Amino acid sequence: MLHTNLSVNENNHLTIAGADTVSLAREYGTPLMVLDEERIKSNMLAYVSAMKKHFGDNATPFYASKAFSCKYLYRLASETGMGIDIVSSGELYTAKAAGFDLSLSCFHGNNKTDADIVYALENGVGHFVVDNLSELDRIDEIAAEMGKTPSVLLRLSPGIDPHTFAAVVTGSVDCKFGIAIETSQAEEALRYALTKKNISVDGIHAHIGSQIFDVEPFCDEAKIMVGFLSDMKKKLCFDCKILNLGGGFGVKYVEGQPNINVESFISEIAKYVKNEVEKCGISYPKIYMEPGRSIVADTCLTLYTVGGTKEIPGFKNYVSVDGGMSDNPRYALYGSEYTVCLASRMADEKSFTCTVAGRCCESGDLIQENVLLPKPNRGDILAVLVTGAYNYSMASNYNRIPRPAVVAVTKDGVKTVIRRESFEDIIKNDL
Amino acid sequence: MLHTNLSVNENNHLTIAGADTVSLAREYGTPLMVLDEERIKSNMLAYVSAMKKHFGDNATPFYASKAFSCKYLYRLASETGMGIDIVSSGELYTAKAAGFDLSLSCFHGNNKTDADIVYALENGVGHFVVDNLSELDRIDEIAAEMGKTPSVLLRLSPGIDPHTFAAVVTGSVDCKFGIAIETSQAEEALRYALTKKNISVDGIHAHIGSQIFDVEPFCDEAKIMVGFLSDMKKKLCFDCKILNLGGGFGVKYVEGQPNINVESFISEIAKYVKNEVEKCGISYPKIYMEPGRSIVADTCLTLYTVGGTKEIPGFKNYVSVDGGMSDNPRYALYGSEYTVCLASRMADEKSFTCTVAGRCCESGDLIQENVLLPKPNRGDILAVLVTGAYNYSMASNYNRIPRPAVVAVTKDGVKTVIRRESFEDIIKNDL
Repeated sequence: MLHTNLSVNENNHLTIAGADTVSLAREYGTPLMVLDEERIKSNMLAYVSAMKKHFGDNATPFYASKAFSCKYLYRLASETGMGIDIVSSGELYTAKAAGFDLSLSCFHGNNKTDADIVYALENGVGHFVVDNLSELDRIDEIAAEMGKTPSVLLRLSPGIDPHTFAAVVTGSVDCKFGIAIETSQAEEALRYALTKKNISVDGIHAHIGSQIFDVEPFCDEAKIMVGFLSDMKKKLCFDCKILNLGGGFGVKYVEGQPNINVESFISEIAKYVKNEVEKCGISYPKIYMEPGRSIVADTCLTLYTVGGTKEIPGFKNYVSVDGGMSDNPRYALYGSEYTVCLASRMADEKSFTCTVAGRCCESGDLIQENVLLPKPNRGDILAVLVTGAYNYSMASNYNRIPRPAVVAVTKDGVKTVIRRESFEDIIKNDL
Repeated sequence: MLHTNLSVNENNHLTIAGADTVSLAREYGTPLMVLDEERIKSNMLAYVSAMKKHFGDNATPFYASKAFSCKYLYRLASETGMGIDIVSSGELYTAKAAGFDLSLSCFHGNNKTDADIVYALENGVGHFVVDNLSELDRIDEIAAEMGKTPSVLLRLSPGIDPHTFAAVVTGSVDCKFGIAIETSQAEEALRYALTKKNISVDGIHAHIGSQIFDVEPFCDEAKIMVGFLSDMKKKLCFDCKILNLGGGFGVKYVEGQPNINVESFISEIAKYVKNEVEKCGISYPKIYMEPGRSIVADTCLTLYTVGGTKEIPGFKNYVSVDGGMSDNPRYALYGSEYTVCLASRMADEKSFTCTVAGRCCESGDLIQENVLLPKPNRGDILAVLVTGAYNYSMASNYNRIPRPAVVAVTKDGVKTVIRRESFEDIIKNDL
């Protein structure tokens, strides 16, 4: 199977963390998202321990919670000693509701509203990751009014393209995020930030992209960032306390993709970073990294009930399921790859090549194309694997379809972590 | 201006239906969607009167409510004598909550679950538009159990490609929707449907796509559909009561696109349909059409507050706003065109070419590229025009951003029709 927590039981049903997916679908209904709690914890702990071991005791991974923001995951992040990366007051509100210690948070994003800044200051957010100068000005002004001195990291663009999908490349110069080093704007911004009285400029941040399977882009990033710090040390006497290298670690969605070994991945990056810091003669900063997808993606699958199949001679076959772009818009947005199985008949011969279509009234509402399955019948349970990241978080009520329930398989049994949305919920704000 | 309900007032602010958009943004906050009630009504009435005039008194337009499903719009559809096209139990629930007479509804979609079928039968849905045979079987079975005989239209694929965007082409043979005429599957399906005891096969349906500005594709569609009916009359003695030609009428999003004149458009199609029907010697069926986008798109705009601008020398300029793909994913999904204005400074010189970026933590979260504006400042109000269709309906809580408030400008003043989502709403189902 694609991941070690997946298997097939004596009924030829797909299991996750030992739980029978067909039984889960029957008990909780579909569409259903199923999380493997132990795997989430072990993914989190892998980053915590690898970072402390290789970067030093004060290094911390921050869970990039935009991948899947909910109270349950903030609680697990808290238990395992992770910080969190949040990008809005809504994520902050959720983390707060989960009892997360917000001093261990970075507030990201390219556009913090005044309301965001006030709310973050009221709630003691750990660091603002400042994207641009108008934001910097407003944080300084509002901090002055509120009598605070927040910690600030400047988000920089190192000018790196890790050759992934355009919509998720975030570290190149031409990007809505950050301030470019290459154009000297980063230097100007730092110089300007250091004149501000009501903020503490504690470090710099970059995030180069997504689904990166090699160590090299991170090393390239570190080289540029450390080089910038060395330059700024000389020019501005800037002593950087925190170097936040972002996230972007790849996840195995389909056979043929590698599984990143977090321990050795972090070890290699750490070796490189330490060497660069030493060469440049700056003091060794606290290191932050921000895994999101690689914390949650492979801990989850989505179960659907099959509605029927359609065979169009000379063209192709379709299988319809009872969810779609309303709970997983990633194929519609990016053509994302997924592994699909017929969870209710895992041992049957796979002889039906098909497009898995969602139920939304839109031709582009597909989950995956060219999938080989046993020919499904109405009522079969179909599983889409590795749906933990950017599925529930991007889910909508398109076609007024309620968002799915999310359950977690734990050592003590199965528990609901997000209730299924009701029709009442959907029309709650309609007047 | 792009549409006749838009103008600029003495403060150089953009107005919609006479209302000052900057005042609306101040009063209701941003992001804010603003509807023009009179325009919605006149769009609806244009279809009602043109269809009755040209197709006959029993012809009816059905509002394709997936474009924007909310209680308010179902109430207006009811007032103006439109039917509604719904695609899920959630849309049905919303229409019912608005007091809509569900006998004037068509239940669409490529995958109706058993729960959908039961719920639709319980609530007296007017017609099921049946997409495939497994669905047909289940409707027949469930109808038998419930002692009902629902009206059924068969959704067919006429094999037409109106040359628009692939994700929204729905009438070609290779599509998740419908049963192909070309492959003889439509004939087999009709033959099979006519053997079913618990359904009344009342007609056929097709929908060829979206953003169609010419009459020709509709005439091509009608020719194929009427030809099929003529053939089925001969072969199966099938007397079709209802011919549902779907929707897909284009809307002007940007300068250079035409404005469809509904009256003359329908008149031309009607002339063609009548002629085909006469030529084929079948009895003239009741005609349904299903405008969605062309009812609501141009009745709405979205207001955002500008966070700041970013100029990257040698690359491009960015303007950040306080919404994005969370309230309008259409640029991310399809690269959709929009007209953007700086609503708070309409008379200022436009000298700043920029990309309008949303606030979501994703590089692909853009609203539009290559937009020419006066250089915006933090706090300026930016308007994106023609956002009535597939914006609110596709909105998500990505990054846990609350969905916007929706207000309507009416003859009696401005009223809220959908309340702004709260953070409490967002975490309501989180455990």
